[in-house]
Amino acid sequence: MGTLSSPPPRARTRVSIVGVSGYSGIELARLVAAHPSFDLVAAYSDSWAASPLGEHLRLGARAAALVVEPLSALGNARASDVVLLATPAEVSVELAPRLLAGGARVIDLSGGFRLKDPAAYLRWYGFEHTAPELLPEAVYGLPELTGAVEKIATARLVANPGCYATAAVVALAPLLAAGLVSPEAVFIDGKSGATGAGKKVDARLMFSEVAETVAPYRVGAHQHTPEIEQELSCLAGEPVQVTFTPHLLPIRRGLLVTAYGKLRDGVDADALGPALARYYAERSEQVVVVAPGAVSIADVQRDTHALVGVHADAERRTFVAVAALDNLLKGAASQAVQNLCWMIGAPFAPCAT
Amino acid sequence: MGTLSSPPPRARTRVSIVGVSGYSGIELARLVAAHPSFDLVAAYSDSWAASPLGEHLRLGARAAALVVEPLSALGNARASDVVLLATPAEVSVELAPRLLAGGARVIDLSGGFRLKDPAAYLRWYGFEHTAPELLPEAVYGLPELTGAVEKIATARLVANPGCYATAAVVALAPLLAAGLVSPEAVFIDGKSGATGAGKKVDARLMFSEVAETVAPYRVGAHQHTPEIEQELSCLAGEPVQVTFTPHLLPIRRGLLVTAYGKLRDGVDADALGPALARYYAERSEQVVVVAPGAVSIADVQRDTHALVGVHADAERRTFVAVAALDNLLKGAASQAVQNLCWMIGAPFAPCAT
Amino acid sequence: MGTLSSPPPRARTRVSIVGVSGYSGIELARLVAAHPSFDLVAAYSDSWAASPLGEHLRLGARAAALVVEPLSALGNARASDVVLLATPAEVSVELAPRLLAGGARVIDLSGGFRLKDPAAYLRWYGFEHTAPELLPEAVYGLPELTGAVEKIATARLVANPGCYATAAVVALAPLLAAGLVSPEAVFIDGKSGATGAGKKVDARLMFSEVAETVAPYRVGAHQHTPEIEQELSCLAGEPVQVTFTPHLLPIRRGLLVTAYGKLRDGVDADALGPALARYYAERSEQVVVVAPGAVSIADVQRDTHALVGVHADAERRTFVAVAALDNLLKGAASQAVQNLCWMIGAPFAPCAT
Amino acid sequence: MGTLSSPPPRARTRVSIVGVSGYSGIELARLVAAHPSFDLVAAYSDSWAASPLGEHLRLGARAAALVVEPLSALGNARASDVVLLATPAEVSVELAPRLLAGGARVIDLSGGFRLKDPAAYLRWYGFEHTAPELLPEAVYGLPELTGAVEKIATARLVANPGCYATAAVVALAPLLAAGLVSPEAVFIDGKSGATGAGKKVDARLMFSEVAETVAPYRVGAHQHTPEIEQELSCLAGEPVQVTFTPHLLPIRRGLLVTAYGKLRDGVDADALGPALARYYAERSEQVVVVAPGAVSIADVQRDTHALVGVHADAERRTFVAVAALDNLLKGAASQAVQNLCWMIGAPFAPCAT
Repeated sequence: MGTLSSPPPRARTRVSIVGVSGYSGIELARLVAAHPSFDLVAAYSDSWAASPLGEHLRLGARAAALVVEPLSALGNARASDVVLLATPAEVSVELAPRLLAGGARVIDLSGGFRLKDPAAYLRWYGFEHTAPELLPEAVYGLPELTGAVEKIATARLVANPGCYATAAVVALAPLLAAGLVSPEAVFIDGKSGATGAGKKVDARLMFSEVAETVAPYRVGAHQHTPEIEQELSCLAGEPVQVTFTPHLLPIRRGLLVTAYGKLRDGVDADALGPALARYYAERSEQVVVVAPGAVSIADVQRDTHALVGVHADAERRTFVAVAALDNLLKGAASQAVQNLCWMIGAPFAPCAT
Repeated sequence: MGTLSSPPPRARTRVSIVGVSGYSGIELARLVAAHPSFDLVAAYSDSWAASPLGEHLRLGARAAALVVEPLSALGNARASDVVLLATPAEVSVELAPRLLAGGARVIDLSGGFRLKDPAAYLRWYGFEHTAPELLPEAVYGLPELTGAVEKIATARLVANPGCYATAAVVALAPLLAAGLVSPEAVFIDGKSGATGAGKKVDARLMFSEVAETVAPYRVGAHQHTPEIEQELSCLAGEPVQVTFTPHLLPIRRGLLVTAYGKLRDGVDADALGPALARYYAERSEQVVVVAPGAVSIADVQRDTHALVGVHADAERRTFVAVAALDNLLKGAASQAVQNLCWMIGAPFAPCAT
Repeated sequence: MGTLSSPPPRARTRVSIVGVSGYSGIELARLVAAHPSFDLVAAYSDSWAASPLGEHLRLGARAAALVVEPLSALGNARASDVVLLATPAEVSVELAPRLLAGGARVIDLSGGFRLKDPAAYLRWYGFEHTAPELLPEAVYGLPELTGAVEKIATARLVANPGCYATAAVVALAPLLAAGLVSPEAVFIDGKSGATGAGKKVDARLMFSEVAETVAPYRVGAHQHTPEIEQELSCLAGEPVQVTFTPHLLPIRRGLLVTAYGKLRDGVDADALGPALARYYAERSEQVVVVAPGAVSIADVQRDTHALVGVHADAERRTFVAVAALDNLLKGAASQAVQNLCWMIGAPFAPCAT
Repeated sequence: MGTLSSPPPRARTRVSIVGVSGYSGIELARLVAAHPSFDLVAAYSDSWAASPLGEHLRLGARAAALVVEPLSALGNARASDVVLLATPAEVSVELAPRLLAGGARVIDLSGGFRLKDPAAYLRWYGFEHTAPELLPEAVYGLPELTGAVEKIATARLVANPGCYATAAVVALAPLLAAGLVSPEAVFIDGKSGATGAGKKVDARLMFSEVAETVAPYRVGAHQHTPEIEQELSCLAGEPVQVTFTPHLLPIRRGLLVTAYGKLRDGVDADALGPALARYYAERSEQVVVVAPGAVSIADVQRDTHALVGVHADAERRTFVAVAALDNLLKGAASQAVQNLCWMIGAPFAPCAT
């Protein structure tokens, strides 16, 4: 991440986190508190309100002493340069306009600003978007996409990608961008640990319902489908259609995506692996290319990297691309901090938590 | 399974199990010992040799008293009507000709007799087949395939299907047979618990390597690929090409297959669900059709049933078909006992173990 | 369980289950529906009310067709000979007097009638017992205790033991009854799978909180403490004091208890193993004595048996007794059906579910 | 850990790791490579020999480039100030005398030098100790024990404690040292994740044997028993007798010990909690005292801390002390690095890995 020139960073950027008690909020707090370029100046959560952060997380002295405030206090927050929203999409859509109006820059970890089409919110998220005027401005914060870091650097509002979408896009983007695979029908099989669903108390997420089993969910209806299609289509320069089926795994953290499709006519099957390697060699230290059979959730747990690999079948003219990442880090919090670093021109210290 | 007329069963069929100490062998022993139509007359295993079966398994008195014999004693075995081989493919290929020559009928749970093309063994299994003359005769023992039970009833040699293959075929067969989906490129994402690998002591199957992670394996090289293609092609009446990627799950038992592909031109997306339901209503009590989001490994663990479901996407002209089963039962031992029952005309008592 | 003479069973005993949608209720339904001596005549659950049982469980045709009724309909239930209460203790305490007054016999799976001292309910269960007049009459339904089956056979009200208490008592009873170990300070370390907490939706029982960890809970405050002390003291003929610490395990089913204490002065350390073996040889097919290192949760999952073992340390004059069982079967539902069988003089068919 | 005065550290201490490919060796490599006071100058492992460390672990550039050497090359190693042995006890006993003779200081992570009594090795470890002359000199490297850091600072040979022993001793030492609990009969129930057994390929450690179950092992025979007794007796100034039962948990990392015993006559039950808190407030930032119900493996996984808590039962005159730690860190590698820091007077940076 060193080649692009960025504006010089100010002394220390003041950062606030909203929704700090959720799984992503916790990781944000750890990453921001440990980073030399940031001051964590406020943290909001209704369930942790009025207690010091250090009661819930093992942090350095300064961050540990920070007293968590309720979301209702957000208007009175000490001035922040950047606010990180780790809140449900509907809450983010309500908070972001206010924060931007107050002069802060915003990184939203929800899906609230990821889709360009306002109508898609009613269909895929189940609510009417109340700030559609911000959608054209919101920058999709996946730094590995061609041209993304320039836009992130100057963005007021960054839409941090979804966990499945990040994995799907890092696996498929280089292949579609190079015109190696067909955009017509891409199949994405997603597998995620239970923290992907957040901390919500739900009968379907009880230990005895999730352990010792695997099952698909939201078949044909998962809200990352239009997000993946939007970003891959933009990249491919033609419509990419995605059939996506997520599955719940009996593990806490980590996510694997296995994507399938057809080679474009005339493409050499041997070209896919090198194209993938070349793409990331030029663009990111956070995505590591390995053999597809070496892509494993274990190797990215509590780690900020994604692993990707591809296999092409010359006989069947098909391919399999695989990506693994930690849904709470590269799939949420560490990607947000990557974006935060690009926004202020600071280096992203890729530390495991 | 009651409508087809079968030859009247003899008093009690004498059954032997070879490889009784493996995970599938154990399930075979339980199912055979509990079934009123069978006498378990011999059990073979080198690791359990010379000890009574009851020392290893909780069984009825008669089966518990049976002393396990080494494989080398197989020539001296008391006469069996049917021998169940729960042995590696290379061992089965060596044993089956001898047993058939001795007058026994054989059900082989390995892949040793599943493929019609002898050359495929070197490529996918890594050994030269030494009994290719038996391959034309071997009956693929998946009773839910159209026309299968008639062949099984009179077979001398039944090739019991692979666990992934069973799941893939029960999910896809009705759709391909009815001409609803394209045979051109079918993608199969398989996910299996660790007992699928058998009891072999392997560094990659240690608890600390399998727990808390999921990863693909044998990408582009799994030996169930040609088996699935062979059976689906036969059914569809045209070549079906399959891209199959298996994944290892951190659970003991159970397997899920998620299959993807395109609808045939002109097919109504709403036709797939009813076609699936109709197929199994006519053919089997062992495959139950449910909503695709209700297909779950938990619901088939230690159970002889498979669950299948399908979702078609009218907009994208694609489909997702899902199947779950217990890899040791419908994916191995209980399917073998279903075949055994068809061979002698006895009813299969679908009992959980 | 065949030597004691019991009253001849009536044609088929009419059984109702209250709380059928809970984990124990589900197992009760399976066991009762599969047993030739019982008719499942009614099932109650507010969450499953108005749907047929077969929509939730794979059962025989007759039980599957039974339409679940809300608890409020319990007064209108068709006449039952025995009602099984799989309800919280406070609900059981309210329902049992009514049901008994209506002429039914009752087996309560909660702790509502297990303690003889009414005052203990406020301390350990947190509520004032409203039917203390029934406590003297309630029979503690652990058939392996000396003299228990005679009382169970004629009981109107059976208090089915707690899961931890069953394991602790089957491990320790033979040693205390024979005077081999000191009653003065017994330490019990309990470890249970998550279904032990029932189906309640609780943030502490979410997958992401239970997986990949083990922790003690209710230290010094678990309500099975007085239950274990009461039963062991009764058996030993002197006060037995128990320090009990339960731990939550990241597995669905199964429970292990490791109990520690001192040998009585003068006792031969070699006497403990044979005493344990002799006790169960005389009393029960449901408790199997094995080497302590062979007591494993895996061997009793979905099985009605308990495994027990003991090791005595001659040098340190201490012992370790271990017991494992399935918390939903021998720790709840199958023990209730054992009691039900003793109540009507039917044989208990020890079937796995 | 700042108050004790230590010799000034030399520029950077040269450290070698023997057995780097094991679970503890991997953690050692990460910790040493990340610590500013150390140069990792050599790493030995037969299974990784001739490949750079960076092929196996994600490390900084310098450590990643280090080529692993076979154990046979140990004699030719570049000069090390300290050698860390992450080898089996018998290998350590053979290597340590040679390394000490060559002028290096040694920290041995095996049990090879933990016991003072040479005869105990045959009984508990199954081999005759071949370097008994080193046993009196070896310092038991548990920095939280009173007086330990002074001895560690000048030691040539440090015996790094066992994982269970560390947990047991940190939980019990403050209580025994203060004379609050009886030394006569202490019961220790240990529960460990599967990495505790190391990377050995063993049928009993296969995923399908460990998952979904818990079982005791080496009942009455675990080699940490004499280690715990030795250290606690030394501390208490009188013989402490320990009955210890380890259990294998279906998790990768982390260990919990639940210890039970009797209060000494006349001791106030309320004194135990404060005594525990006071002990660690004075001695260590690496052991954190919490409520016993808050001691959880999840809170110490991939973390260098131990958590301890105690509950005393005034009525029964007993106590329960609980400790949790990561078996690979505070139970092995990070404790070794704590010792390494004390040996050279460097601060221990308590970083999560």
